[in-house]
Amino acid sequence: MEEGAVTQPIKFLEPRAKVVASRDRIIADLKDILPEDCLVHEPRELVPFETDAFVSYRRLPLAVALPKTTEQVAAAMKYCHRYGIPVVPRGAGTSLSGGAIPQEDAVVIGLSKMASILELDFYNRTARVQAGVTNLSISDAAGAEGFFYAPDPSSQLACTIGGNIGMNSGGAHCLKYGVTTNNLLGVKMVLVDGTVLELGGKHLDAAGYDLLALVCGSEGQLGIVTEATVRLIAKPEGARPVLFGFETSEEAGSCVADIIGAGIIPVAIEFMDKPAIEICEAFAKAGYPLDVGALLIVEVEGSEAEMDAMLADIVTIAKKHGVKTVKECQSAMEAAAIWKGRKSAFGATGRIADYICMDGTVPLSQLSYVLKKTSEITDRLGLRVANVFHAGDGNMHPLILFNANDPDDAARAEEAGNEILKLCVDAGGCLTGEHGVGIEKRDLMRHQYGEADLAQQMAVRAAFDEGWLMNPSKVFPLEGRG
Amino acid sequence: MEEGAVTQPIKFLEPRAKVVASRDRIIADLKDILPEDCLVHEPRELVPFETDAFVSYRRLPLAVALPKTTEQVAAAMKYCHRYGIPVVPRGAGTSLSGGAIPQEDAVVIGLSKMASILELDFYNRTARVQAGVTNLSISDAAGAEGFFYAPDPSSQLACTIGGNIGMNSGGAHCLKYGVTTNNLLGVKMVLVDGTVLELGGKHLDAAGYDLLALVCGSEGQLGIVTEATVRLIAKPEGARPVLFGFETSEEAGSCVADIIGAGIIPVAIEFMDKPAIEICEAFAKAGYPLDVGALLIVEVEGSEAEMDAMLADIVTIAKKHGVKTVKECQSAMEAAAIWKGRKSAFGATGRIADYICMDGTVPLSQLSYVLKKTSEITDRLGLRVANVFHAGDGNMHPLILFNANDPDDAARAEEAGNEILKLCVDAGGCLTGEHGVGIEKRDLMRHQYGEADLAQQMAVRAAFDEGWLMNPSKVFPLEGRG
Repeated sequence: MEEGAVTQPIKFLEPRAKVVASRDRIIADLKDILPEDCLVHEPRELVPFETDAFVSYRRLPLAVALPKTTEQVAAAMKYCHRYGIPVVPRGAGTSLSGGAIPQEDAVVIGLSKMASILELDFYNRTARVQAGVTNLSISDAAGAEGFFYAPDPSSQLACTIGGNIGMNSGGAHCLKYGVTTNNLLGVKMVLVDGTVLELGGKHLDAAGYDLLALVCGSEGQLGIVTEATVRLIAKPEGARPVLFGFETSEEAGSCVADIIGAGIIPVAIEFMDKPAIEICEAFAKAGYPLDVGALLIVEVEGSEAEMDAMLADIVTIAKKHGVKTVKECQSAMEAAAIWKGRKSAFGATGRIADYICMDGTVPLSQLSYVLKKTSEITDRLGLRVANVFHAGDGNMHPLILFNANDPDDAARAEEAGNEILKLCVDAGGCLTGEHGVGIEKRDLMRHQYGEADLAQQMAVRAAFDEGWLMNPSKVFPLEGRG
Repeated sequence: MEEGAVTQPIKFLEPRAKVVASRDRIIADLKDILPEDCLVHEPRELVPFETDAFVSYRRLPLAVALPKTTEQVAAAMKYCHRYGIPVVPRGAGTSLSGGAIPQEDAVVIGLSKMASILELDFYNRTARVQAGVTNLSISDAAGAEGFFYAPDPSSQLACTIGGNIGMNSGGAHCLKYGVTTNNLLGVKMVLVDGTVLELGGKHLDAAGYDLLALVCGSEGQLGIVTEATVRLIAKPEGARPVLFGFETSEEAGSCVADIIGAGIIPVAIEFMDKPAIEICEAFAKAGYPLDVGALLIVEVEGSEAEMDAMLADIVTIAKKHGVKTVKECQSAMEAAAIWKGRKSAFGATGRIADYICMDGTVPLSQLSYVLKKTSEITDRLGLRVANVFHAGDGNMHPLILFNANDPDDAARAEEAGNEILKLCVDAGGCLTGEHGVGIEKRDLMRHQYGEADLAQQMAVRAAFDEGWLMNPSKVFPLEGRG
């Protein structure tokens, strides 16, 4: 079997049922189960599936199934379950933690052919969609009637709702509206053995256990979601992003904590430090001030009067923290540019260097402290860092810049990332706010959790997938089970 | 062993490990484990623990432990686990579904001695409390600083945060702020074998699976929560309940659906039909109009201008549905009276008749249809019904009035309740919005779920409690396992 460029091998330590069928036999069988255009198995056609946005790891899968219906997903899963073949679910492959990276003995089940919006029910404010639909297309479809789907990852043009559910994705506007789990009402999902479950629906709450909330953020290990019912929200009367420039990151961080601590909840509070401002401005011409050390993008919404009132309160707090610049945008075009700059931060960074993006979440009172310590860590290791993140949620995204062609640089970047995530946990936070554990952070789970915590999470996983076949070698430390 | 007035026996069908120790031995052992004032075992002292607010069932437990610390809870659980003794967690005993009703071979673990507020952290907008703290006391403690805890069950003066977590409780003001699961950030909990877990904290999100969301609403079957970290919310600038009177329940129901369908989210939209209005007004002198067929209490909040703007939109919609009366309250005293009337609905109903309260939740588009069908069911069975519920959430509470001393009447009330809940499920809704399944609805779970759904829920339960010892004979149909 031809392999892609394997930067680092993935270890397989978990005691899994051996694949009893040969690769040729599995492909032949899957051809019987799936329509002809729904199976990819030629090595060169498998290359697009060898990694995701966590490009440090690559591995060609055994085959890729691209089913068109829930029934086809179920048939493929049932077959794989019978023969002990690992299954890796895949949306758009935008995972930053390696959540969609396959193993060489695994069948990838991709949802790209299941991308229909099945129902827009404005009366109940819900959309029912196939899991392969992109995040942004839901808002696009609902927009004409004045509604939108709130969680907005930066990759929303590409990422799918199924992937969003797997990682419990967030986004800039989640401060007010909540992340995926707060906007998800129901799913249709296929269990490892091909059983189809429907959880939730258009109603609130659930009788019995809240399996829907459990599935959201379970990184494709409890089953494959094929359909989702999500909440639509009415567009506000108006919305206005405002730029607040500060001398230092610490001032900006304290200001965020004070805004939230005062009980004020804008739609978004995004944070950019000087390197992030420079990178994004160079790329997007967003109109960011270049003479400040840190920038907050605060978006308020509602009527003009409501926006004015909330902004006045925020300006008062910002002044206490020595705000240097307050810049209100003067047009819809300026507003769009501000958001384009923020949302292209990762892409813009990728133009100038390799980077890894951390995703720790901390209590807001710890924001300034963690920013300061993050700089100390990267300074000590001789690395550059750019911070651009969802400050109102305490969800930090330090981008650690390095040169992937220099193994020593790469090792130091990984070391810095690990230290920063441990710092977040030690400050009362957690390893991940929205990107998931995936491959990237699986070994750090021991820093966050004790044996009993991990054992309980693994017991829950086993209650869905006794044979450990679904998206293996992720989330849990490998020496655990995979 | 002396028994309380057993209205209906509880069946024990699940294949559970037999209690190997005698009652006397168990009590002697628990005396060794717990401080002297933390164990109740004399039959007459056990009477307060024989039932909860679902008074149809009563049974004296074997003993009641009232620990003062998490360590004592853990010690009692570890002991009970070793000897296969069922454990029933208990907050304030306000469950409407029988969630806290014991079995005669069970040890009740009550949290009443763990009622301290451990930390108010206004900077991070969180409160850390022991699980036996009452719901309202959190808001009372945070009030001076301008914050409150949002979920507000009608029983909030008595019910505990631990019970709220067990049932994922809601309340009138949850339309805007969400129910318990949306306001819960972390718990300390004791597993069946005495292991102590800490889930979540002051940060958002979790690495790995969202066990916190799973535990919320799991009705005390996955462990006993001993501490909780909850979100505090800033009090609004102002709040104003407004009464909207309609000729018919159908008009009021359609109006609710149109308000929500337009994307307007007030703080609360409560619904009362004519019988409910009369019962509550007679009890609370709330100032409700008596010449209408149905009443909506709509609460808006914010600045005067914000409230005026939202109310104007709502009035426009209400007029389309033929609103007869719009009554704004003129003072804080009037506002308090309006809410007192609503929140005392169950108590006021209890003064005039026995009643059972259903808790189905439906998509809002089905509200009018379900109200109409509910009347048809109770009419056919010769019963009176009063509807008073969280309309904005689609969370219906028909109170079916009957005479508990007339077995035929009681049987018809139970039949009506079952038919109404099946109606809710068939209309795309679910059996329970906030009261839980408990004993009351366990047999109806088959109407909501297929075999695969129930099997998956039970597998998750077993992943926490293999021996089925925690709060047994609840949530799942008895012929399943209990």
